[in-house]
Amino acid sequence: MCKDWDLYGRLIEDYNPSLSFDGIDGDRIAKRLHEISKIGLTEDGGSLRVGFSQEEKKAKTLVKGWMEELGLSVREDGAGNVFGRLEGKDTSLPAIVSGSHLDSVPNGGHFDGPLGVLSSLELVESWRITGYQPTRPYEVVIFSDEEGSRFNSGLTGSRAMTGDVDMELQSSLVDSNGHSFERVMNETGLSEESFAGAVRNLKEIESFVEVHIEQGKKLEQQNLPVGIVSGIAGPSWLEVEFRGSAGHAGNTPMTERQDALVAAGEFISNIHELPGRVSDSAVATVGKLHVYPNGINVIPGKVALHVDIRDIHEETRTELIKLIITEAEKASDKFGVRCNHKQTLQVTPVPIQSGIKQHLRQAMAEHNIRAAELPSGAGHDALIIGRHLPAAMLFVKSKNGVSHNPDEWSSLNDCVQGVHVLKSYVESIDKE
Amino acid sequence: MCKDWDLYGRLIEDYNPSLSFDGIDGDRIAKRLHEISKIGLTEDGGSLRVGFSQEEKKAKTLVKGWMEELGLSVREDGAGNVFGRLEGKDTSLPAIVSGSHLDSVPNGGHFDGPLGVLSSLELVESWRITGYQPTRPYEVVIFSDEEGSRFNSGLTGSRAMTGDVDMELQSSLVDSNGHSFERVMNETGLSEESFAGAVRNLKEIESFVEVHIEQGKKLEQQNLPVGIVSGIAGPSWLEVEFRGSAGHAGNTPMTERQDALVAAGEFISNIHELPGRVSDSAVATVGKLHVYPNGINVIPGKVALHVDIRDIHEETRTELIKLIITEAEKASDKFGVRCNHKQTLQVTPVPIQSGIKQHLRQAMAEHNIRAAELPSGAGHDALIIGRHLPAAMLFVKSKNGVSHNPDEWSSLNDCVQGVHVLKSYVESIDKE
Repeated sequence: MCKDWDLYGRLIEDYNPSLSFDGIDGDRIAKRLHEISKIGLTEDGGSLRVGFSQEEKKAKTLVKGWMEELGLSVREDGAGNVFGRLEGKDTSLPAIVSGSHLDSVPNGGHFDGPLGVLSSLELVESWRITGYQPTRPYEVVIFSDEEGSRFNSGLTGSRAMTGDVDMELQSSLVDSNGHSFERVMNETGLSEESFAGAVRNLKEIESFVEVHIEQGKKLEQQNLPVGIVSGIAGPSWLEVEFRGSAGHAGNTPMTERQDALVAAGEFISNIHELPGRVSDSAVATVGKLHVYPNGINVIPGKVALHVDIRDIHEETRTELIKLIITEAEKASDKFGVRCNHKQTLQVTPVPIQSGIKQHLRQAMAEHNIRAAELPSGAGHDALIIGRHLPAAMLFVKSKNGVSHNPDEWSSLNDCVQGVHVLKSYVESIDKE
Repeated sequence: MCKDWDLYGRLIEDYNPSLSFDGIDGDRIAKRLHEISKIGLTEDGGSLRVGFSQEEKKAKTLVKGWMEELGLSVREDGAGNVFGRLEGKDTSLPAIVSGSHLDSVPNGGHFDGPLGVLSSLELVESWRITGYQPTRPYEVVIFSDEEGSRFNSGLTGSRAMTGDVDMELQSSLVDSNGHSFERVMNETGLSEESFAGAVRNLKEIESFVEVHIEQGKKLEQQNLPVGIVSGIAGPSWLEVEFRGSAGHAGNTPMTERQDALVAAGEFISNIHELPGRVSDSAVATVGKLHVYPNGINVIPGKVALHVDIRDIHEETRTELIKLIITEAEKASDKFGVRCNHKQTLQVTPVPIQSGIKQHLRQAMAEHNIRAAELPSGAGHDALIIGRHLPAAMLFVKSKNGVSHNPDEWSSLNDCVQGVHVLKSYVESIDKE
């Protein structure tokens, strides 16, 4: 563990105490972020709390303790999702659920996940002080394994709760230690069977809201502490293969080549311009690429690459996918190679409903924060829940847009302003 | 070993016996190619006679026997190069040396190397029959380890003879079995010390000539059995690194990216057009490329690639290298990334002297073969010798341009015509 670790001290250093009001306490949030950060702390000052690890479990136990101190009724489902429930005045109404996750990527940061859980919990703290009892039941949720670092999957807990799981596929997963999903479940006191039984009756839930760090620079650029997520982009993955002819780099004249990498290069540089044609929120990335045979003096016979395509609207994403496929064919024709493509992932994007955004804008206005909207390019538990239920997301400003990294940082001032907006939003939909 | 192996039968099948004249015997060449092909024959009908292996040694011993039968004085130097010398009328004159190599790449073909050695030897056979004694001494040479498959190097024997060896580097080589250069040398009865002592007094040599298969399609396209090599391209290897910013493929807007792969893609597709601007023989290839971190949903932060740049003239190659570096800088500027480059290999190209080409054209004319000139994109022992001494090369037509492969093929008719042209050429420079 990192010596002289003092996340609390760094958080509180430039905190403006006047932001602690209405029962929301920045000092408590900083202390709790610090307590969680010590679990799985790495030499680099990062976080190692992979999904379904003992560290994730330990962090859940810590937060469960705080839930119990607040008198919430705490329940853990068969997928390890933790729910801390505060009864509403009308116990027959479906609940407002709010939360995030406590797992991290290997050597990740201390805000991605924990901030959302602690923000949701802070509402209950504030209500205890202000004496507010919600009309509807309110639940703080900790979803298991959001990052998916253990099995190269992700959003595991929220998918288990909504039933978005192919159990056959799930059972076949093996982690990097060669341990099966069942074995890993057993290690945290769960099982495949309990996991499959975690599906919840979604009629018990009215809506979901998640506070999360932005993991981008848009709020920083506009100097805004908090922003309204306009939609959560679903990734679509396209695997494209260019096939030419391998040959000797010295003996094949330029005019007689079918160089798969030249075609792939043209494709990659050209598709960079395409997202802007369909929408402001669309993105396309070639992140992974392999050349075959990959010898210095051999003309590439084959290139296999993956395009990650996202947008918050399905129509524009579909349009972008079509443009990208056309571009692959154009580049192939130009350089005399063949290409084929297949979709390897297709997650439906979730635009946030306009009624919800209206409530969020009001909540922002109450705290004099300009209500900027921004898309979430990354997936979150809200993406899964949003397929089934009304979902909202608030982003808190990230320093330099860095995340999944020990340098991940959000100022306590911004975090606390996020909690205030969350509180106003939840109270406003509770009253509806 | 391949069952029913009959290289001789396949060679002789469509042979035109009227090409056997002036003491040159196609049947003997076919038999000898067959005998050599049996040493290191693979399951696929390919050749496995890696440099400094027992198979290469066995092949040398076989050919040494044929040299001795012809009364040549046979000598092996400390690098395993074999010289079979026929004395000239004037023993004080420097020798005409002709030959090639007997090693192969793993699972290579049966013509790359052996054809050159047997063509050179066939001249002595023909002279014995026609009673011709050259004025100058004539030596048939078998160079060791031309392909360099053992140590990822190459042209080892010819470099040892000319002294183009960095002994410190050579001593540090380790093969894929983890065996040191010294150990490998010892296995074939040689040593580092003997290898270092293989440098020959080049004043003993008048000029060098090598017959080799084309390993390209130019002669086939023009339906010519033999061609004159206009020059041997030296490879120049440029390692180019593009450095941008890694980031989340979902959260980073297109306008805020520094995507190293987008810049590299633009570079690769654009440099495809550059060789044609400097000369017809210039080529440039990006064969090897790695993306970092190479994750589907991560914007590439770094791309490292290698450009193999060749031409037979140093000036045009230098011009091409400059254009390529400028293009790397242009692509980097366009996409906001940085780039740096370093040269990792620089072999001086060897253009064939015009006086030599005049002799070669005469020799071609004697056999009514149109004297087409073509560059050699691949390196050969003649590239090394040509740095120090006048060197000539003749290419024999390759079927489909295939080489370094069991499918490598040249018809016996074309091989024999190559020997006739070699004979006319050697006799013409012998008489000068």
